[in-house]
Amino acid sequence: MIQALIFDVFGTCVDWRTSVAHEVSKVLPQVDAVAFATAWRAEYEPAMARVSGGAREYVPLDVLHLENLLSVCRDFDVRLKRPEELNTAWEKLTPWPDVVQGLNEMKRDRIIAPCSNGSVALMTRLARHAGLPWDCILGADLAQDYKPQPAVYLQSCAALRLRPEQVVMVAAHNSDLSATRALGLKTAFVPRLTEHRPDQQTDLRPEESWDFVAEDFADLARQVSSFA
Amino acid sequence: MIQALIFDVFGTCVDWRTSVAHEVSKVLPQVDAVAFATAWRAEYEPAMARVSGGAREYVPLDVLHLENLLSVCRDFDVRLKRPEELNTAWEKLTPWPDVVQGLNEMKRDRIIAPCSNGSVALMTRLARHAGLPWDCILGADLAQDYKPQPAVYLQSCAALRLRPEQVVMVAAHNSDLSATRALGLKTAFVPRLTEHRPDQQTDLRPEESWDFVAEDFADLARQVSSFA
Repeated sequence: MIQALIFDVFGTCVDWRTSVAHEVSKVLPQVDAVAFATAWRAEYEPAMARVSGGAREYVPLDVLHLENLLSVCRDFDVRLKRPEELNTAWEKLTPWPDVVQGLNEMKRDRIIAPCSNGSVALMTRLARHAGLPWDCILGADLAQDYKPQPAVYLQSCAALRLRPEQVVMVAAHNSDLSATRALGLKTAFVPRLTEHRPDQQTDLRPEESWDFVAEDFADLARQVSSFA
Repeated sequence: MIQALIFDVFGTCVDWRTSVAHEVSKVLPQVDAVAFATAWRAEYEPAMARVSGGAREYVPLDVLHLENLLSVCRDFDVRLKRPEELNTAWEKLTPWPDVVQGLNEMKRDRIIAPCSNGSVALMTRLARHAGLPWDCILGADLAQDYKPQPAVYLQSCAALRLRPEQVVMVAAHNSDLSATRALGLKTAFVPRLTEHRPDQQTDLRPEESWDFVAEDFADLARQVSSFA
């Protein structure tokens, strides 16, 4: 029944906040690195919305990240010699501790792939950095649009020659799963309680009866393997 | 300098002729399986040429393979109950003996990916079957066209955010390398002397001064690692 699992990456598989802050602190020791990382990330959704809304053509997330970095530098009143270098912070994110082993377990019997807004270039380098054993890279680049646009999820299934109901979308974000459930994919929620900050208020629990609700990727691997 | 190696797959990484013949022999014991496999493969280039030439829209290679299978069945005067099942023969190809270890060596310092006419669905399943440790899947699906169309090679580089001269195309076919050299990619020739049949007459040797000429993938890994 379930032939593939596709994954949200930023937040669900990797801890972007701590990792980006760490890279920021190396080149901008004078700023509050966590605040800088959080401000950088805050530009992410509005930038993608301009593409999905038709205000501009699709460009890979790397381009949006760089534009957003320059904008946040202005807000923090700092200047970078080589902003492209700090932009690769998104390729150096640390996986949550359960992720690599859990993915390897799920990979035994099913195709595993990211379904992220990150580009192929970004996801490929991140996978090498973090040891994420993807079978292939799906997501925004393939659809030339950003989640939660239906094309991103549907073209990820189509690229694998699978029907939506043969694919599970795994995410720590209820909104990502609402978008996929409406398209017929199966859904799996894995909470990441400190993605945003230690006192995170959102996505602490499942907001719908998702097909799978797991503590972590090890738990998800067990549940999926006993499912079908 | 060299950031990535991208690979032709059918013939260069895997022995399609013997593997497809093996799958044919299981369901069509009454036919000459090698002749059947060879006839099936002979339909491959004309079918892609109709897409690249504009006579039809892009469809993934799986669709062309299935149409070609039905046509070869007619020529051999045989009928299959489930042609889709035999069509997955292309996902069960055996790698040449030097390939998996050589790819793992090249992967240590560089991105490795297929740049094949096979679809993401096909290449993903083939990688799982054959143990090909790709970092991501590039090629025809990404460009929505077939090699040797320039878009296939160029979009593979662009998807990795690399300039053509940072990428080596690896193939057992001189024609594949001619197409890529013209676009600025580096080129590597690895002969596969029995791809077509034991008395193969083509691609026995390099026909231009390619950047790398290697005996096998182990030799190529050594040459590339000492290059830069």
